[in-house]
Amino acid sequence: MKKTEILYLKIAKIIEEQIQNETLIMGDKLPSVRSAHKLYNVSVNTIKLAYLELESRSLIESRPKMGYFVSRSALRNSELPSVANINPLESKNTPEDLIDKVFGTLNKSDVTQFALGLPGKDFLPLTKLNKSIITTLRNRNDAGTSYEPVQGTEELRRAIAKWALVMEGKITEDDLVITSGAMSAVYNALMATTSPGDSVAVESPAYFGILQAIKTLGLKAVEIPTHPLYGLDLDALKKVIPEIAACCIVSNFNNPMGFKMPDENKKELVRMITAYNIPLIEDDIYGNLYFGTERPKPCKFYDEADLVLWIGSVSKTLAPGYRVGWIAPGKFKDRIIRQKLVQTVCNSSLYSDVITDFLEHGRYDHHLRTFRNKLYNNYLQINRAVESYFPDNTKISQPKGGFMLWLELDERISTTELYNTALAQKINYAPGRIFSQYNQYHNCMRLSYALEWNERVEDSIKKLGQIIKNNI
Amino acid sequence: MKKTEILYLKIAKIIEEQIQNETLIMGDKLPSVRSAHKLYNVSVNTIKLAYLELESRSLIESRPKMGYFVSRSALRNSELPSVANINPLESKNTPEDLIDKVFGTLNKSDVTQFALGLPGKDFLPLTKLNKSIITTLRNRNDAGTSYEPVQGTEELRRAIAKWALVMEGKITEDDLVITSGAMSAVYNALMATTSPGDSVAVESPAYFGILQAIKTLGLKAVEIPTHPLYGLDLDALKKVIPEIAACCIVSNFNNPMGFKMPDENKKELVRMITAYNIPLIEDDIYGNLYFGTERPKPCKFYDEADLVLWIGSVSKTLAPGYRVGWIAPGKFKDRIIRQKLVQTVCNSSLYSDVITDFLEHGRYDHHLRTFRNKLYNNYLQINRAVESYFPDNTKISQPKGGFMLWLELDERISTTELYNTALAQKINYAPGRIFSQYNQYHNCMRLSYALEWNERVEDSIKKLGQIIKNNI
Repeated sequence: MKKTEILYLKIAKIIEEQIQNETLIMGDKLPSVRSAHKLYNVSVNTIKLAYLELESRSLIESRPKMGYFVSRSALRNSELPSVANINPLESKNTPEDLIDKVFGTLNKSDVTQFALGLPGKDFLPLTKLNKSIITTLRNRNDAGTSYEPVQGTEELRRAIAKWALVMEGKITEDDLVITSGAMSAVYNALMATTSPGDSVAVESPAYFGILQAIKTLGLKAVEIPTHPLYGLDLDALKKVIPEIAACCIVSNFNNPMGFKMPDENKKELVRMITAYNIPLIEDDIYGNLYFGTERPKPCKFYDEADLVLWIGSVSKTLAPGYRVGWIAPGKFKDRIIRQKLVQTVCNSSLYSDVITDFLEHGRYDHHLRTFRNKLYNNYLQINRAVESYFPDNTKISQPKGGFMLWLELDERISTTELYNTALAQKINYAPGRIFSQYNQYHNCMRLSYALEWNERVEDSIKKLGQIIKNNI
Repeated sequence: MKKTEILYLKIAKIIEEQIQNETLIMGDKLPSVRSAHKLYNVSVNTIKLAYLELESRSLIESRPKMGYFVSRSALRNSELPSVANINPLESKNTPEDLIDKVFGTLNKSDVTQFALGLPGKDFLPLTKLNKSIITTLRNRNDAGTSYEPVQGTEELRRAIAKWALVMEGKITEDDLVITSGAMSAVYNALMATTSPGDSVAVESPAYFGILQAIKTLGLKAVEIPTHPLYGLDLDALKKVIPEIAACCIVSNFNNPMGFKMPDENKKELVRMITAYNIPLIEDDIYGNLYFGTERPKPCKFYDEADLVLWIGSVSKTLAPGYRVGWIAPGKFKDRIIRQKLVQTVCNSSLYSDVITDFLEHGRYDHHLRTFRNKLYNNYLQINRAVESYFPDNTKISQPKGGFMLWLELDERISTTELYNTALAQKINYAPGRIFSQYNQYHNCMRLSYALEWNERVEDSIKKLGQIIKNNI
């Protein structure tokens, strides 16, 4: 055992040196475990341990069914974005005009859409989905027109519960409520757990949809400093936790930062909210888009007190326009169902049937595997492109999944001011300013890489880099 | 002119006498204008005037393309339900358990569904709708999956604006926002026009969905006495209008009472809310299901101050499960769009395309004509059945359209208490109690007649009558 330990560290050291001296460069595939065991003349197990060691240090990354690759973090030229200093004395406002502007261009097909929080058409199995719609209509000719139960069809809820292996059986169909996309789930979760005037802790930068929902419901957002790799600063949260009514986060492959909150932090967060009896709204819509070997656990997995409202959807992965999301609302289930009845009565039963079909026949998992590979490849592309074309002092997030890249640019840059310049060049991005209620993140931007990578996209990143360089 | 006036009144008198002495009975078709002009040897115009006179007095009713019929009101055996005395000192609560019970049976096909606020499957053009879905998917393979603009597609908004002839061109596509059914429109209209704690005037009895939305938003419902033929008591409203933030009504073929608010009352109501600068939320989802000759005007038609939020949908007429509704929110448009973005982002674009198609090719109007005829026939059936099988002291509403019948039973009856007895006999109705926040309407019930009239339905009314008789 001792011998193996030394041996695997030695091999890890050799590979690390190859990475440092650029014998192996970012994106290179490492020898398979089997080849390496012959190459180094050590046991298969020693190689596995060496690779795990390198992976734990983010030097290499494993890709399911493909093996190990040199991680981009191994040779990062760029720093990570900073953790924000949040000044609650700063005047508050949500920059709604700016959000409207960004959303206003979404249907323009001649614009390169880095702003879109949605996968491009090329990533969706349109033919299969449409075939499923037609089959569903043939099997049940009133599938489209009938009302479904307010909670959602039992079939869809059961299919989601069965498919959500990450919960290891802790979720059943009874625990789930189908919602009109994840945004509706977040909105209703906030509504069910708070009263107007209450405070809600959120990450900073935060997904602007969450900030807007908080504002619409007459609530106050308390922005918590957030680390680009580890997420919510739990010490900072601890200080405000006695004053908040709920906490609302994107725990896995966060929007906009891309981090995966470490398991230990998730456990600690659940311990904290349980101690204070504070509901935790966990938007986990990117959780299945992991670059690593497995789907990360949600906070919900550690929730014994039924205080976590866990949210998922197929909008980011399969069919944005179907508006099929869900929530496992713990003890707030009855309230959520009642709110849904009052707001929209029910979902469209046709889409429920189609998604049930997709989940049950393993087609969703099959699609997710392909989709993850494409996204990881795109992530490598956009990271390379930004490092090539943007100023050297650009700080780049290091997403572990999902499809959002967060950039922190030179302090002299205002991505709000440059927005129109970029749009004139047919480039749409999400300016940093919309991810906070305070006047911050002016020098940041979020880029989505869930779009087919081609020359136009490459060229758009080049142009964007030039625009920024011209303004320093 | 003078001569004609006397002549037409004379002919009207003759026909009135025939109705009184039961030469003509309820549902009988009158001679066509052309036949009658020969029969009475007077001009066509005189006959037309005579019929209009009789119609204005509710003795006869015109049915589009079918001619004139003796109205059921001509020979009513039953009284109209009373106008409620509302006692605001009574303890308030919405009977949510009862609502849950009623909704809980909606998917049981062995139950006769008088409780359902929805047309039965037999009334919907399922084949045509499904064909339209398939065509849409063939024409644009991402129709289902893509996001549409938050306000809704321009095509659908334009199609609605064009189709809404009743507004005589006062509504354009810019004025409309597509919503997830009418309930979502009502909810968002309330949210856009009030703040928590505000009071909202509603009809009493009121559609329970409106009462629940008001409660969910932390608002107070002020129930206004409502006449079974004329609707909202405007004098009663006038007394409370300085204290309310908004008014929310179902103006045409009201749910549950079936009345059509007279044009004069609509004009007066709009004058009142304009004088006090109070928004009027007008749920007009039954407006196209008229039994008379033409689609009644909405209050929105008289609105010069952009204070009326006019709501429509296809849920009651064409495709409940599509969740396609709309609102012309006047000056509250931007707020409604912002709320929608936060709540659900957008609607399902596939259904938008299908409904656009239906509206544009006159197929919706064609369907509505057939549907109205079926509903009117069903109304005559259910009215006859209730008069035959229910106790003689049953008071029956006199709907002018839509598909709801409101019954006021003997004071000793509690439709809440009888609910389980009826359900055990596979009959589901809506107990009166759910139509108020106060402890009233216990002896009332709402019956939907938008279901295929057959022996089972007839038998269910008979059984229901017997249950009531057994409990007096």
